[in-house]
This record gives sequence, structure tokens and C-alpha cells, in this order.
Amino acid sequence: MSVRVGVVGAAGAVGSTLLSVLAEREFPVGRLRLLATARSAGQVVRWRDTEVVIEQTRPDSFAGLDICFLAVPGAQVSRHLAPLAVAAGAAVIDKGSAFRMDPNVPLVVPEVNADAVRPGPGILASPNCTTIPLVLCLQPLRAVAGIRRVIVSTYQSASGAGQAAAEELRLGSEAILAGAAAEARIFPRPLAFNVVPQCDLFAEGGFTLEEWKLVRETRKILSAPDLRLTATAARVPVFVGHSESVYVETESPLTAAAARAVLAQAPGVDVRDDPEHGVYPTARDAAGTDRAQVGRIRQDPHDPCGLHLWIVGDNLRKGAATNAVQIAEEWIRR
Amino acid sequence: MSVRVGVVGAAGAVGSTLLSVLAEREFPVGRLRLLATARSAGQVVRWRDTEVVIEQTRPDSFAGLDICFLAVPGAQVSRHLAPLAVAAGAAVIDKGSAFRMDPNVPLVVPEVNADAVRPGPGILASPNCTTIPLVLCLQPLRAVAGIRRVIVSTYQSASGAGQAAAEELRLGSEAILAGAAAEARIFPRPLAFNVVPQCDLFAEGGFTLEEWKLVRETRKILSAPDLRLTATAARVPVFVGHSESVYVETESPLTAAAARAVLAQAPGVDVRDDPEHGVYPTARDAAGTDRAQVGRIRQDPHDPCGLHLWIVGDNLRKGAATNAVQIAEEWIRR
Repeated sequence: MSVRVGVVGAAGAVGSTLLSVLAEREFPVGRLRLLATARSAGQVVRWRDTEVVIEQTRPDSFAGLDICFLAVPGAQVSRHLAPLAVAAGAAVIDKGSAFRMDPNVPLVVPEVNADAVRPGPGILASPNCTTIPLVLCLQPLRAVAGIRRVIVSTYQSASGAGQAAAEELRLGSEAILAGAAAEARIFPRPLAFNVVPQCDLFAEGGFTLEEWKLVRETRKILSAPDLRLTATAARVPVFVGHSESVYVETESPLTAAAARAVLAQAPGVDVRDDPEHGVYPTARDAAGTDRAQVGRIRQDPHDPCGLHLWIVGDNLRKGAATNAVQIAEEWIRR
Repeated sequence: MSVRVGVVGAAGAVGSTLLSVLAEREFPVGRLRLLATARSAGQVVRWRDTEVVIEQTRPDSFAGLDICFLAVPGAQVSRHLAPLAVAAGAAVIDKGSAFRMDPNVPLVVPEVNADAVRPGPGILASPNCTTIPLVLCLQPLRAVAGIRRVIVSTYQSASGAGQAAAEELRLGSEAILAGAAAEARIFPRPLAFNVVPQCDLFAEGGFTLEEWKLVRETRKILSAPDLRLTATAARVPVFVGHSESVYVETESPLTAAAARAVLAQAPGVDVRDDPEHGVYPTARDAAGTDRAQVGRIRQDPHDPCGLHLWIVGDNLRKGAATNAVQIAEEWIRR
């Protein structure tokens, strides 16, 4: 089998990770077409044994593609390009937020709801980088104990806002270490040596779009439209790796040991939970990995149905690129 | 009035902040005696218009003191020194954890429970740096709506673990920016550009001592021995300023607007909550301040009794030094 693959946004943080993941997972790429804005067009990208020139994306760029990954910042770009790619006969796998909540578009974390993937041309959406590790852990707990509600606080890395954002963190950190001030152009406040409790824009109820994404996407993926989930999303000065402090209230009591055993069997999840020996996942442990890592699993001392989890994931890989490639792997099986 | 003041640990992160705060608040210091370990003895500290030489702490160092601040790392040192100072006739104000849960020792945040301060010689404890901003916000909410339970996730700065820990963050950050690896000697894992979900040692139930401190100290200060509070404490790469993502379940419904109005009247609390105009507190905003700052006040969309708060505080000042000086101010009024 040989698949003609396009990657839009090939020069960005997620796009370049996507290329690595396609190679690592030996995705059956027949032809590879790399697309980006005029700014990146002409760049030569080394991929496996070949060199591929990035082309400027045009309305007719999608002809002849089987799968087109969209790794572009901003929902507007996806909204413009995805229908063009589908009309040209491609399955579009969008890592952005444009179509995630569209009732006609499957929102897929393959370990959780691979069944949602449909064959043929059409749009398939990959969830937000904080949603993916969360649902990987919630789904197996829900299966054994039910979930009454979830309260999440995130610790999100700079690269979740793109390569330029990670660079802003680097420059700001250097400035502060040199005794100067950090500038904020991409982040709403300087992120270096700071915590900024705003990811994305503010929306209804005082919650940010990022916080709403966690709520709505989790409900859709788990087919749990009434799931009570509420979140606070904060940006921390980390380059790669999102962490989440998660409190789960289950419907029936669940001990930490039982939760640990369930999560140890869960696809896409690694349990790293032996605090007495210093074993728990940190943000940096997540970087470069393709699975969610979970530790600090504890039962609320005041509630046998209350469970704490500490979840980390690589926001560029499983949180974006790897999940998109896994969706493509499911698609070619259909 | 003139008070003879001793500061043990005068060369440390909290001790040196304490000296600044004593001067800023024009505490009526008559005589000032600075004590520390042999390593720091002999250092000359400029305080107001005088120069004070740090002396090595000895069993007889406390004679003639009215108030002795203990700003020493490790509960063992406090346990050893506090009784000596009390026997010499001093009121001991301990910023450490040694005596906080002792039923005979008042644990004081003056805005909340100044009444607990007793006159004369004896030990008075100042709470943990995450507890103080939390109780400043919980107390007024409890007064109007009752509190059913609280779920806290912290984002704690390096200086909470002392000056050497902050220096480890600085060196580690420089190393990583230069392409090298960060070392961990004080923190359990390298903190630079990372999030480490461990503050202090692990204890019962898989919770850390830091997490238990938040639970037990909050209960004691609020005189709410059965308060359901559960926490996850994580260290973030910030020099000064602790942040806390707090979910409060009240007994009666409380809108965000009502909570905002209540907190705006609360002593020791500044509401900074106008997200549409980019107003919310970040860790760096807290540094150098003497009040808790709270923002991102939101009602849980699924629960009229659920409230999110984002609280920040300077862990060296209100979280430690300022609170200790405020306790001393209460003491001299008795």
C-alpha cells in the first residue's frame, strides 16, 4: 500500500513533528507533498532519504492526495483549506480546532474511539493537546467506576502555542537571567519564570477557549454529552510537555490501587507511580514520548469516590502529531 | 515602644526578606540581633542606618529578646531553638512547620484569626506559604456561603524551597539554554523548564507533606476541623510567587459576581479579575507584594455551588516574612 500524503504547515512545530512521526512509524507514504505559507515556501526538508521542497499552499494544491494533514495555526486557515482538500478527494486530518465540534466530523483519539473514523474523503479532527492525555486516562476509569465529574488544572508548555511562542520563552528566559525584562508578543504576559493563567482567548462564563475545548472535546470523544468537567488552563515556562492535575469523582468507589491497575492496562497510557522511589512523571519526562504518562494516583482522604491523577503528555507528539498519524493509520485500515 | 528583636536564619531567603519587611513596616525595633549558623556568622548586614553583624546561634543567644523570629530551614532546628528562646522570655514567631499543628501553639494569619495571638513569652506559628493566600480567600467565602469542600492544585516557586533552591533553578535554566543538562541537588528532579509534582517528602496516602500541610493548617486556622480539602502541590520554574488553582464547593450557591464582591472587601486580598481587559494575577505580579491576589473567578457551569479561583501570593513576603511580622504586630498590641 502506498498513500499520497500532504502536510500543510510543514514548517511549524506540529508539522515538523508530524514528518518525524510519519517516518518513525513507517507510515506507507508514497508521495509526500509539503505545503506552507509563502514565507516557508522553497525551504528544503530532509525526510527519510529524500529532500522535499516546501510549496506554497494554493487552492489546487490538493489534487492527487489521499490524506492531507492540516497543521496550521488558526481555525480560519483550516476552514478555508479543508473543504478544498476534501473536494479534491482527500481525507483531511486536522490538528486544529476548526471542525472538532462539528457534529458531522469525527473527533478521534484512536485508543478511545477509533470506530469513529470513516473511510473515504472527508474531515477527521484530532483533539486539543490537553484533551488527548486526559481522555486516555478517563475512558478506562469510566469503564470500571463511572465518572460523576472531573476538575482539571493544566500546566501547559510554550510549544502548545507554536514554535514562535517557544522561542519567545527562550528569549525571555535569557533576558531575565541577564537581568533584563522579558517581552510578551505572543503570550498575553511574559511567560519566562512566570505562570500565566490564560491559554487562548476568554469566552463565556469567564472560561478561556482552551478550558471550553477540554470540556466539549472530552464529552464528544467519550460520547458523554452531560459529563461534568470544569477546568483551569495555565501556561508554564516549559518548552515541551503539558501536565494536568486531575481530580476525578467516580460514581462508585475506586481505590488508588484499583485505578492504578486499570490504567496500567489502558492503551496509550503508561503508569509511572511509585512516589516512595521518586517515580512520577514530570513535564520533561513526557517530551519525546507517544503515550500519556500518569502518576501521583491518590484517593481523596475524605471521599472514596475522589481520585487525584497527575497526567503528562508530549503536546507536539501524542497531543498533536502522533495522534494525527494514528488517525491516518486507522483511516487506511477502513 | 521599643522591642528587642532577634532573627534566626537572618542570611536565608525568608530571613533577609524579614529584615526588609521589619524596616518597611517600621516595626518598633529597639535592639536587633541577627543569628545564623556558623557559616553565615560574621557577615555584616545593613539594616536601616545601622550595620549588624550576624552572630552564630548559641543556646544563650536569646537572653534579653522580646521577640525572636525563627526563619530556619528544617523543623528540627526550630524544635531545638524555640524552647530555649521561650525559656529566655521571648515570644517566638516560627515560620517553619515544627509547631504549626501543636494544639498549644496558635497558627496565625492575622487577617483571619488574630484573636489566636497570646501575649507574653510562647510560640506563635506562621503557616505554610501556600496556606496563607488560600485561607485569606476561603475565610470570607465561607462566611457568606459556607464551604463544603476545596480542591487545590498549586504552582509553587523555587524560592519556597530556599535561596539555594532558587539558585539551582537559575543554574539549571542557564545550562539548558546553553544546550547542557540541568542538575538536581535540592529539588527531586531538575526544575528548569519543567514541572515537578513533588514539594517536600511523601507521606500517608501518597500525598506529600506539603499537600497535608495545606489540608491541616487550613483546618486549624479556619477552626474547621472537618473541612474537606484535598490538594496536589507541584513545583514550577518560577523564582518567587506561588500560584494556586482552587475549586471551592460552597454550601449555598454563590455567583462569580457575588464572590468577587465578597473578596474585594476581604482583608489582605486584592481582586484582580477583569479577564476581558487582560487583568488576572500571574506569579510574577505577586512578587514583592504583601497581599494575596485573586482572579479568574468563575462559577462552575455545571454547579451553582462550584467556584474557580486563581490565587497568587509572594511566598517569601505574605507567605512567610510579612505574615510573621504581622503576627509580631498583633503580639505587641496584646
